[in-house]
Amino acid sequence: MALPLIPLKVLVNGQISHKISIADRGLQYGDGLFETIAIYKESPILYELHLKRLEAGCYRLSLPLPKRETLNKEITTLCQGISRGVLKIIVTRGVSDRGYQPQPQSQSTRILSIHPWPDYPTISSEYGIRLRVCNTPLGRNSYLAGIKHLNRLEQVLARNEWIDPGISEGLMLDSQNNIISGTMSNLFIAKNGDLQTPDLSYCGVAGVMRKFILNQALALGIMAKIQPLTLVDITRAEEIFICNSLIGLWPVRSLNNIQYPLGSLTQRLRNLISAQLFCR
Amino acid sequence: MALPLIPLKVLVNGQISHKISIADRGLQYGDGLFETIAIYKESPILYELHLKRLEAGCYRLSLPLPKRETLNKEITTLCQGISRGVLKIIVTRGVSDRGYQPQPQSQSTRILSIHPWPDYPTISSEYGIRLRVCNTPLGRNSYLAGIKHLNRLEQVLARNEWIDPGISEGLMLDSQNNIISGTMSNLFIAKNGDLQTPDLSYCGVAGVMRKFILNQALALGIMAKIQPLTLVDITRAEEIFICNSLIGLWPVRSLNNIQYPLGSLTQRLRNLISAQLFCR
Repeated sequence: MALPLIPLKVLVNGQISHKISIADRGLQYGDGLFETIAIYKESPILYELHLKRLEAGCYRLSLPLPKRETLNKEITTLCQGISRGVLKIIVTRGVSDRGYQPQPQSQSTRILSIHPWPDYPTISSEYGIRLRVCNTPLGRNSYLAGIKHLNRLEQVLARNEWIDPGISEGLMLDSQNNIISGTMSNLFIAKNGDLQTPDLSYCGVAGVMRKFILNQALALGIMAKIQPLTLVDITRAEEIFICNSLIGLWPVRSLNNIQYPLGSLTQRLRNLISAQLFCR
Repeated sequence: MALPLIPLKVLVNGQISHKISIADRGLQYGDGLFETIAIYKESPILYELHLKRLEAGCYRLSLPLPKRETLNKEITTLCQGISRGVLKIIVTRGVSDRGYQPQPQSQSTRILSIHPWPDYPTISSEYGIRLRVCNTPLGRNSYLAGIKHLNRLEQVLARNEWIDPGISEGLMLDSQNNIISGTMSNLFIAKNGDLQTPDLSYCGVAGVMRKFILNQALALGIMAKIQPLTLVDITRAEEIFICNSLIGLWPVRSLNNIQYPLGSLTQRLRNLISAQLFCR
């Protein structure tokens, strides 16, 4: 399906606009953050978790956080009439002089845009997907790890490694061969009824759906460990799945030549996400 | 001196404009490259070396390279009447759908802007500067090393570590404690009449002025080695200097508590840069 290149609706600092200044630091240096949020029946899903991550990112980058009430108001306006869609929030350090040094008086730029729902194939969620291992590594930097900042060239290069539409996602390793995440998703493995997901202290994005799954696991009494994982751990896993805010949860059925079953823990969590987030 | 926030002249894809689409991948993911070029007497200085690096960056990112004749024409137009200034070229992967995957048919966006000359204090070049060591590390990723891409949050965070105007630059180390560069400059040390500059195979930007100095050293019979360097090497150096396309060469006179002389090799290279590039 060819999606339109221009989002459906956009507000730049509260004004209807599709443009920003070329002097914006978001363009000049990737100096900003973003959130990609599912909209269902006019509401942003997992909104509090998204805002919490945005807040953490602003704190880490010393970026002025947009006022909660301003965001709420603009999001309510944008989501009106959207039964299913995607809300993207970008917050940058705004317009500045040339040069890396942030200006103390800088005003952040906020860009809120509504995009069509991607219409992922049902088979990805129900049957599962094929995963590959990417060559592009993730650089390790604890100063940038976990937050969803605008420096995403590593993901772009990794996603550009394959065009086979039968492969839905690529696994990214850090420069020390730890498994970190997919290009656009987080990863869980299951073994003996427990969950494990990669430690993101040095790279990767701490996904909101990952957080939701960790919270649910806690509530359900499922042991879930955040820890360093390698390709050997993946090879020995009983179940694998990936997740993000839009896809929810997709079972992984193959990684290179290894096949994985559609396991019971994976199905349980997938059904729980559907029921709790997308079936009200 | 307060510089204007908006550049003096801008061409976006050849048209006079100060704006780009919010759907441009340069903003969305930092998916692009840039060059910062000194203009002297209406000419871009070290233009061939800049274009060569831009070309290498486009190749690495699989980005369509703007046509040389188009760039030449636009740069000639923009530089008219500029006796001293800064030309910035940004090339992005252009507007696309949401999602990391580049579109095969994507058209790049080129943004050429003219900025006022920064008027650096004469003392920086003549007497030298104070350098500090930054805490923000550089992540190691050979896929992104050397090229001047738009993912510059590491430099932004490092430059935000100090506000003391008496400190002109910060030294950045990679996650394995190798010295790589300044936040906006490359670094050389001199010992026994030889030059050494950090290996940039895993991070850092391969500066155009660094390349010019390496070329000059070769022509003058000065031994210049590209190699891994640590803080210990710096401590034992006889001379240190930093360089970039705008500052030329600045001698480093202190790093934390260590003082360095204004050495003869540093002065020779500084004078050579002035004579060859900025005194025609």
